[in-house]
Amino acid sequence: MATDATLHGTGEFGLIDRITRGLAHDPRVLVGPGDDCAVLAVAGSSVLVTCDVLVEGRHFRRDWSSAIDIGRRAAAASLADIASMGGTTTGLVVGFGAPADTPAAWAVECTAGIVEEASSVGASLVGGDVVESPVITISVTGLGEALGQAPVLRSGARVGDVIAVSGRLGWAAAGLALLSRGFRSPRALVDAHRFPVPPYASGPWAAAAGATSMIDVSDGLIADAAHIARASDVVMSIDTTGWEVPEELQSAASAFHVDPREWMLTGGEDHALLATFPAGVTLGGGFRTIGTVLERAEGDDTHRSGVVVDGVERSGDEGYRHFSQG
Amino acid sequence: MATDATLHGTGEFGLIDRITRGLAHDPRVLVGPGDDCAVLAVAGSSVLVTCDVLVEGRHFRRDWSSAIDIGRRAAAASLADIASMGGTTTGLVVGFGAPADTPAAWAVECTAGIVEEASSVGASLVGGDVVESPVITISVTGLGEALGQAPVLRSGARVGDVIAVSGRLGWAAAGLALLSRGFRSPRALVDAHRFPVPPYASGPWAAAAGATSMIDVSDGLIADAAHIARASDVVMSIDTTGWEVPEELQSAASAFHVDPREWMLTGGEDHALLATFPAGVTLGGGFRTIGTVLERAEGDDTHRSGVVVDGVERSGDEGYRHFSQG
Repeated sequence: MATDATLHGTGEFGLIDRITRGLAHDPRVLVGPGDDCAVLAVAGSSVLVTCDVLVEGRHFRRDWSSAIDIGRRAAAASLADIASMGGTTTGLVVGFGAPADTPAAWAVECTAGIVEEASSVGASLVGGDVVESPVITISVTGLGEALGQAPVLRSGARVGDVIAVSGRLGWAAAGLALLSRGFRSPRALVDAHRFPVPPYASGPWAAAAGATSMIDVSDGLIADAAHIARASDVVMSIDTTGWEVPEELQSAASAFHVDPREWMLTGGEDHALLATFPAGVTLGGGFRTIGTVLERAEGDDTHRSGVVVDGVERSGDEGYRHFSQG
Repeated sequence: MATDATLHGTGEFGLIDRITRGLAHDPRVLVGPGDDCAVLAVAGSSVLVTCDVLVEGRHFRRDWSSAIDIGRRAAAASLADIASMGGTTTGLVVGFGAPADTPAAWAVECTAGIVEEASSVGASLVGGDVVESPVITISVTGLGEALGQAPVLRSGARVGDVIAVSGRLGWAAAGLALLSRGFRSPRALVDAHRFPVPPYASGPWAAAAGATSMIDVSDGLIADAAHIARASDVVMSIDTTGWEVPEELQSAASAFHVDPREWMLTGGEDHALLATFPAGVTLGGGFRTIGTVLERAEGDDTHRSGVVVDGVERSGDEGYRHFSQG
């Protein structure tokens, strides 16, 4: 039975909340837990640092994805976190756990995938740890820097800002839906589940253009917009009426009799970048406008998601959930 | 069957060797894989970074250790790695995986242990990731700095240097031997297995005193001395004749009819610091002399361990082994 006394009951965010509540204030922790990255004053500089853990069976399947693809995806999660602060990753550190009978070639190829993805932003694999574990576990920590810009947090969105997104929405969700039903094509969607193609360069572009808030879409557009809404105490109003639905998504959605916009609104793992900009900014860097930041009315129930889609409030719980299986 | 084609066959170091062989040279990676920490030039500074992964059943048992002790031990591994470069840890990032039915209180207490151990050196928990996993996995990444000193590597030992150690040897091994046979006392030894008490301050002391090489003893004194021997191309000659065997170790060893010096030579997980210093340095910082660095003779078989104890060569494989269970 799942109760609040287990991780299933508290969930990822409940646990993180309980953990972070007790942390002492350290002036060197410029940004603590709760954003895409922490920002740490170390050796006289501000270092962006983030950690993402992938577990076999939970986040990937070896029969669906190659070792290289799984490595790329593991790295992408951290690289996208750093991009979503407006930063660029310098190095990755990997904690790798695997059963003793894991093919060594699999581990080597997985690492090659991590190195390949990292090198796409000029980052290096700098170290790590290798241990025996009953399940393949890949823990990637990214270290980066904001290159002279202040890191873009989740908490800076202001009423009147435009909401914009760069990168794919819903592709990984469509790919997962296909794989779950035994399909191995269309290739573009299946590959989108296997490894994301985050718009890394859009992050520093947004920071330079004055983005007021930013997050990487790993839990789903609505869920991650809700994170900005909560941190910034605003309402994120998203308008899908002008959306162009990519042909690939449209076809797959038709076959499954679903609305492709739902994949785009709730599908995570594509690692698009969601940002807010002051009204009037000329968008570039791959960003397209998807909405407007509205005021959160006085007396709003604090449990409201803060996300409105086409005028209707949507719950932030519709994206990816951790500890959802008891 | 274990073959070279599996991780059991290659082992931890074989895998790391295969992985690191293919890494491109990046001038920002000041020290790459193969030492206790990597050193990364990020945001204009040199950052020490290290990662250690603990897996339930492999590195700890919940019936032997409290959540707080396991958290302390997880943190200690990274804090000791940074100390062994002569550095001090600034922040920790934790990737935490656990089954959904794990008591939330266990996770919170484990984190409290991490925070407690970190705070003993003035470091903070700055962020992390929480995921569902079939096995409790704690991946700790430490970030630190060498405070104006050059990081002390494994590769700097020179012929004629004195070999010295600070901190406990063999205590965790004795504690594990007791627990494995159903004993829960003596408390001091059992606790030594549950969480180490590394001599963190000895690391920066050694760096300031001109240590030529240093490593933290996590695999065992002989195994870790062999790492210095190999990296520095020297022979580490250890002399146990003058050793004072602590009363606690002596008693437990007598009960088990073993030589306590073997625990001290091969037991890991105490996270003592093993260093070499130029001859003539006045030792402090908790260090005691245990040997001398000798020349590695021309034509030495490259597979020789490079470690001599009381005049007899000892294999570096006698310490803790990863992937040893097929």
